[in-house]
This record gives sequence, structure tokens and C-alpha cells, in this order.
Amino acid sequence: MLKSWTPAEMPEKSDLKEQMTAVQDRLYDLQMKIKEHKLPVLVLFEGWSAAGKGSIIGKVIKNIDPRFFKVATMSAPSTEEIRRPFLYRYMKQIPEEGKFTFLDSGWLEQTAKGVLEGSMSGEAYEKRTESIRRFERQLTDNGYLVLKFFMEIDKDEQKKRMKKLLDSHDTSWRVSDFDMWQHEHYKKCEKVFDRCLKDTNLPTSPWYIIDAGNRKWAELQVMETLVNNIDVALQNQRHSVPIPQNVFPLVNMPRLSEIELKGKTVEDEKYSQELKKLQVHLGELHNRLYRERIPVIITYEGWDAAGKGGNIKRVARALDPRGYEVHPIASPEPHEKSRHYLWRFWTRLPKDGHIAIFDRTWYGRVMVERLEGFCSENDWKRAYNEINEFEKELHDWGAVILKFWVQIDKETQLKRFTERQNNPEKQWKITNEDWRNREKWDQYETAVNEMLKKTSTSYAPWHILESVDKKYARIKALKIIIKELEKVLE
Amino acid sequence: MLKSWTPAEMPEKSDLKEQMTAVQDRLYDLQMKIKEHKLPVLVLFEGWSAAGKGSIIGKVIKNIDPRFFKVATMSAPSTEEIRRPFLYRYMKQIPEEGKFTFLDSGWLEQTAKGVLEGSMSGEAYEKRTESIRRFERQLTDNGYLVLKFFMEIDKDEQKKRMKKLLDSHDTSWRVSDFDMWQHEHYKKCEKVFDRCLKDTNLPTSPWYIIDAGNRKWAELQVMETLVNNIDVALQNQRHSVPIPQNVFPLVNMPRLSEIELKGKTVEDEKYSQELKKLQVHLGELHNRLYRERIPVIITYEGWDAAGKGGNIKRVARALDPRGYEVHPIASPEPHEKSRHYLWRFWTRLPKDGHIAIFDRTWYGRVMVERLEGFCSENDWKRAYNEINEFEKELHDWGAVILKFWVQIDKETQLKRFTERQNNPEKQWKITNEDWRNREKWDQYETAVNEMLKKTSTSYAPWHILESVDKKYARIKALKIIIKELEKVLE
Repeated sequence: MLKSWTPAEMPEKSDLKEQMTAVQDRLYDLQMKIKEHKLPVLVLFEGWSAAGKGSIIGKVIKNIDPRFFKVATMSAPSTEEIRRPFLYRYMKQIPEEGKFTFLDSGWLEQTAKGVLEGSMSGEAYEKRTESIRRFERQLTDNGYLVLKFFMEIDKDEQKKRMKKLLDSHDTSWRVSDFDMWQHEHYKKCEKVFDRCLKDTNLPTSPWYIIDAGNRKWAELQVMETLVNNIDVALQNQRHSVPIPQNVFPLVNMPRLSEIELKGKTVEDEKYSQELKKLQVHLGELHNRLYRERIPVIITYEGWDAAGKGGNIKRVARALDPRGYEVHPIASPEPHEKSRHYLWRFWTRLPKDGHIAIFDRTWYGRVMVERLEGFCSENDWKRAYNEINEFEKELHDWGAVILKFWVQIDKETQLKRFTERQNNPEKQWKITNEDWRNREKWDQYETAVNEMLKKTSTSYAPWHILESVDKKYARIKALKIIIKELEKVLE
Repeated sequence: MLKSWTPAEMPEKSDLKEQMTAVQDRLYDLQMKIKEHKLPVLVLFEGWSAAGKGSIIGKVIKNIDPRFFKVATMSAPSTEEIRRPFLYRYMKQIPEEGKFTFLDSGWLEQTAKGVLEGSMSGEAYEKRTESIRRFERQLTDNGYLVLKFFMEIDKDEQKKRMKKLLDSHDTSWRVSDFDMWQHEHYKKCEKVFDRCLKDTNLPTSPWYIIDAGNRKWAELQVMETLVNNIDVALQNQRHSVPIPQNVFPLVNMPRLSEIELKGKTVEDEKYSQELKKLQVHLGELHNRLYRERIPVIITYEGWDAAGKGGNIKRVARALDPRGYEVHPIASPEPHEKSRHYLWRFWTRLPKDGHIAIFDRTWYGRVMVERLEGFCSENDWKRAYNEINEFEKELHDWGAVILKFWVQIDKETQLKRFTERQNNPEKQWKITNEDWRNREKWDQYETAVNEMLKKTSTSYAPWHILESVDKKYARIKALKIIIKELEKVLE
């Protein structure tokens, strides 16, 4: 792309000034429309060292109310970030509805650097660009405007700018070793940039190459592209997108009605003995996980009153508190609701070597959000694939993913609801909403069956915990966790 | 994609039947909605030999009124098609608004075959997949639903089916040599298919892999995907898409006001001599073009009464009538208007070795259609890139592209209009519309300047013909044509 691209002709100085004023006014006016229209705008600036990414961002944001934007400099991943999946630090930065995020370099630079440093081989590169394409597609599918700029300067211009920076004590620190290396290997870097641009150039989030030889002119190009793209995005009242097919390996799951619950019990004494033994064993494994830096994600979904909480408690007790976290997931808060629905889970991912336990999960999208109409049909139908993609990222990162469906029958639920209602100490656990959900049992069952069928991948299969006898379910959960962890620790 | 994909679970026989009836009814109902909504639907079936592409199409169309669809079997390009650009035969087949086209194999198979036969090297393959991505993106950008199915069967199933076909005299002819070869090299072919699928898998036109092991089940998968995608497409009332940046090399063009018209004249006697000499020369070159199979595309745009017709006549007279065609372009007819605006030009492309002269062109999109509101702002803004892509296809095919802008000033136009009005023999040449257009001279000038700037690529630059003295313009046109043709004939 860089090779075939030709810069547009720079206008005369006076024209440039006039056009700049015009486009600045337009951006100023568009702010409120973006807010009204709830459009989230993610703007990525990539490009050559010394091409002026930072200063351009500085210029652009002058036209926007500070409440409406955030700037993030993504240079090198922090130690905290390195211990999480590649996309984590980018997903973390996505804007809320009606707001901008400006990124000063991002996934392009990180990937190109990996290639140049030789840390990213052929297959890893393929996977990486696939991840990026999925990430961007998920954002645009979910209504985001994703704008990507590549700031282009030639080798001579880069030399001139670097020299200027290096000549002053106040600015010489801004030229890093990598910047120097990049300049010395300009041709090689150009080739890698070119390939990365090409491999991440999507119809829904294309690259815009900016002639950054002149700062004013670069600013005008960026501003005009930005404003034109916002205009286009605002024209779409509704925007349903094709639902991609699942391309991940699936494992067969039974329908809920086929799950045998009878006889899945364990005697009290045996339970106490086994529980203790399993918890000790899990505790040992936890230490090894920590040493080997393997991340673990355990998720619980199931009927109300199925016994998720107690189950989680038994697992958690076996673990070193410094190495795990339980995330109870309620309805999203406003700042969560106004972002991609996976955002609040991406941001809660554990560091490697740690365990995250989710009490309810991202599967809310295809259960409660689907049934209550909190998202569109297109949204939840697309979500199966989005979730499989999300879990694939976690798997490729090296995570063990353990997904539990805690199963009881309708009668057992009624018994437990009534018990809760009649027991003053447990009354807080039962709400009107629980009763309302219970009325929709059949609809939920349909949704759950579809979910189990479409998201039980070989790398993140569902496990059923028969929980009419909660003790049985706890023992089973611990056994499954131990078995799966031992597989990766061998 | 093929490797990681897992087939969905086939329903029980009775469920399958029930679901089939339901989806057939839905498709039947959707026909009229597609018509009302003016949605054009292009459905491509690709896949293994003997996977049942043809019979599936037969099943699907049973649910659609014959007035609303067309089936095209694309197997091997005809001799006529081979002499045109790769995309020509596919573009030709795109449906009208509100209608379906079903393609029995297409650009995937043709490309995979090329790779397998070794006729497509690395760079040619890159170009090819880029062409396909552009083609599909142009269609979806222009409101098309593009649906792509890959019919998947394993090697054993293919063997069984081929054997059955070969065992009967009535069907053995259906197994081609290539089919046999494909079966023998199943693994190799799978790898190539996989790569082609991956390289043409766009967010806006993703691939759907169909488990074709069972015919009824395959039909249900296709029908459901088809119907779901139509549903999604019908939900979009308006759908503006990002405007891609030009990535083609541009050459500088003057603004119309900078073009010096004075002194661009030629004396009558010199004109006659030169004209004759140039025409003879061009005639000779035409023969050589024909022998070397180089296609030539000459396009004329310019002000009303600028002298396009007479200019074309002088060029055409030099040519062998068997080897050229003049295409006068008026406003599109209904069957043209209801397709991608470039369709009527794609279908008028010359064979290699032939010359096509267009009197007015695809640039109408960014002139009259823009100014008269015949297309949306998003449409004409996108068109610069679409046109550059179109001409790039022509260039890569080997065509010489000569684009003329015939320039006069406003006074000259008035003089000629008045002359026409007052001359009974020429009155047919002047209409009220011409006078109306003249009133919009300034708006046209703005549009033309933008067009010249944005579409003067190095592989298809604009040439200005100063035509206050029509004779001057004719001599200049001939000289440019000769010069450019000699370049490629060297």
C-alpha cells in the first residue's frame, strides 16, 4: 500500500488555512451529533518515528471538548500488559458511546516491531493479523467507527527531524534506540509496514495514509478524513451486518432435557473427605500454575438458585488469595453498557499465572440480553461467533478455560426459592426478578441449548454440573478443574 | 478456514423436514420484500467437485419466482471471455436490484485452478485476490448482498459420488479430467482452497462453509444462511460506508482555469496534411495492436459542444471497422440503472486487440450524477476510488487507456449553441437540457477539477484537448493516441 500510494497535492497556503478553519468548525459541530447518535470513535495513529503522531493528536483534540475524548500513548506494553493477551491493552482503551479515543500508535507498530525483531514467525504473524482483523471487525460490527491513520515521511525527512531532536538536550531523549534502528533500516521497515497495512486493510476499517512531510498539511488531511468518516457513520440509522459462520472446532453437547440429574448425589461423609482431598490437590496445582505462569479462567452460568455461589466458594477456598479473583457479574453499569459488551470482561482478565473466576459471564449476551431485548437480534446472533473468537484469543494466549453450566430442574428451583423466601437470613438472595425469570424457564432453556451447542469449542468446551445435590456438583467441579489443569501442567 | 471449521450437527430427520418447510416459506415471503427494497442478491456456490453445487441451486430456486432470478454456470471461461479482464465475466452476471443471480462456481474456482495449474505465481496471486476483494467490496458498498458458499465434502464422500457418476453412461461425462485430478490431489487442493477462502474472507462478504455430506442437510444450511442474510440486509434502510483512500499513483493535473486556450489553433492546410498522415500512421498501428492482442480504451469527456463527436470521427476513420467500436453513452436504461453503475461499461469492454471508444463515460458518476443528485454524496465520493480501481483492472489486463477532456471556454460554448439553434440541420444537436447544464457551468467546473485531480493516475492519466479550434484538438488527440500506442508496441 505504501509503495503504490501517492500523496495528494498540498493546497496553497491560503487555501490550506481556509480549509482548515472550515474543517475545524465541522468537527466542533459534529461533537454533539456524535453524542446524540451515541457513536463511539476509535482513532489510531501509526507511522514512522518522528512523523509527528503526537503533535497531530494535540492539534485535533483542540477542537473537541475535553469531556468527549481520551488520548492514550501505547508505546511499549507495561509489565502488567505483557502478562495479558495481545489485544487486552487495546480493548481496554476503546471509547464509550459518543466519545473519542485517540491512540498514539498501537497494534500495527507492536506487530511490525515483532516482525522486525524476529520474535514473530510466519504462523504467529498470521495469527496476529487474524486477531487484529477480528478485533476491528468486532468493533465496527458493534457500531464503532474505527479510523486508522499511517503518518508517512520519507527517509530524508525522518533524518532531518531526528537530527533536530537529537541536537537539543531538551528533545534528544525523544529519539529511542528503536527510532534510530528504524531510520537505519528504513527500506526494511517500509516493507514490513507495507505488509502489515495490507493485511489489516478492511472494507469497514480501511487504512488512510497521511503525507506527513508538512505538519499543517498533515493536520488538514487527518481532520478532513476524520470529519468525512464521522459524517458517513452518522448517516447510518441502523446497521445490521452479516453474521459470520463459526469456523472453530466444536464438541457435541447434550440438550438440557437430556441431562440425567437423578442419582447424581454424594453422601455427606464421602463429600467431606473428597472435598478436602481435592482442595489440597488444587492448592498444590495453583502453586505450579503460578510458577509456570499459566492463566486460568473459570466461568459459572446456571439457573437461579442452582448453587453457583457455593460451588465457587469451595473452589476459591482451595486457592491462594494472592493468586485469584472472583468477579460477580451483575447488569452492566452505564460506563460498561456504553462500550462493546465484552469490554468489561476483557478488562477483568487475570495476569498469567493467576485465576479469574466469573460468577455469570459474557454469555449474558445470548441469554438475558437476548430474551429481554437488551440487544438486537443481529447482535445476539453474531455474539456466538464473537464469544468463540474471544475465547480463542484467551486460548491462544495460553489460558485454560473452564466453563460450567450448573444444572437443576424446575422443581428443585421452586423448592429452593420457597426456602429462601421463608428463611429470613436467605431472603436477600431472592428477588422479584428471580420469580419473573422463572416464568420464562422455557425460553431460557431454548437459549441455553443454542448457546451450549454453538459455543462448546474444543479449546473451551462447556462442562455440565448436575446440582440437584450441590455437594455432587462441587466435587465434580473440583475434579474437572484438577483434571484440566493437570493436562497443561504435565 | 476449512481446517478449523467443524460442521454443525445435523438435526433429526423430522426436525430437518420441519425446519426446511419453515425456511422455504420464509424465502418465498422474502422475494417480494427484496423487490420492494430493491436489494440485489448475488449468490456464489463454490466447493469440491461432486459436492452438489448444481443440484443445490436447483433446490433453492424452486422457492423463487422465475422472474426474480438467473442461474449462471461459470465453469470454464469461453474464448470470448478469455480475451477480457478476469472480472469481466463475473461483473457481467451481477443481478439487477430486487433480483437474484446464482453462480455455479466462480472466481474462487478459477483462481484455485490457476494456482494448482501453476499458471499463477506469487505476485499474480496477490493481485488476483486483491482484485476479488475490490470487486466484492465495490458490490457490497453499492448495496449488493454478496453471499458465498463453499460446499465441503471429504475425500471418501467425493470418491463415492464420483464412482456413482462414472458407473453410469448417462452421468459419466459429468466427471471431468480436472475433477479426477482434484480427487487424486485432494490434500493439495484443500490447502489451496483454504488459502483462497482465507484471502477473500471479508467482513462484508464472508464465506460460509456448508457441510455437503448429506444433500437435504446441505440444502437446509444454504437456505437458512441465505434467508438470514437477506433479513439482515433488509434491515438496513440506509447504509453509508467508509470512503477508501486513493492508493494509486497520481499525476498532477492543471485546473480548468489554468488551461491556456489561446493560440491553440492550426491552419486549414496544415491540418489536412497532418490529419491524413496521422490517420495513416494510426491505421498501421491498429494492425499491430490487433496482431499483438493489445486492448485499447479511448474515452471522451468534455463540455457540451466542445467537439467530442467530430474528434471521435477523425480517430475512428483511421481504424479498421472490424477492430473497433464506438459507444455513445446516454443516460442509463432501466436495466442498467438497476445495477452497479460500472456494469454498463464492464459489459462494453473490447476484446484484446480491439479498440473501444467511449463518447462520455463512467465519469458521469462524479459529474452529472453528482450534480443532479442521481446518487448519494457517499456514492460519488466513493466513486473516484472505484473508478481508479476499475481502470487499474484494465491496465493490469494490458489495456492502453486514453482519457480525453475536451476543453472550451464558456463563450465558445455559447457561440456554438447559438449556431446550432439557428441552423435547421444542427438543431437536433441542441436541447433544453444543454441550456440547463450551461447554467451550472461553475458547479460542473468544480466537479471536473476534482475529477481530474483524483482520477489522473499514472496508468490512466487525463489528457486535455484544447478545442476552441476543433482541428487543433483533433490533431492533438491523434498525436497522443499514436504516441501512447507506440510506447506499448515498441
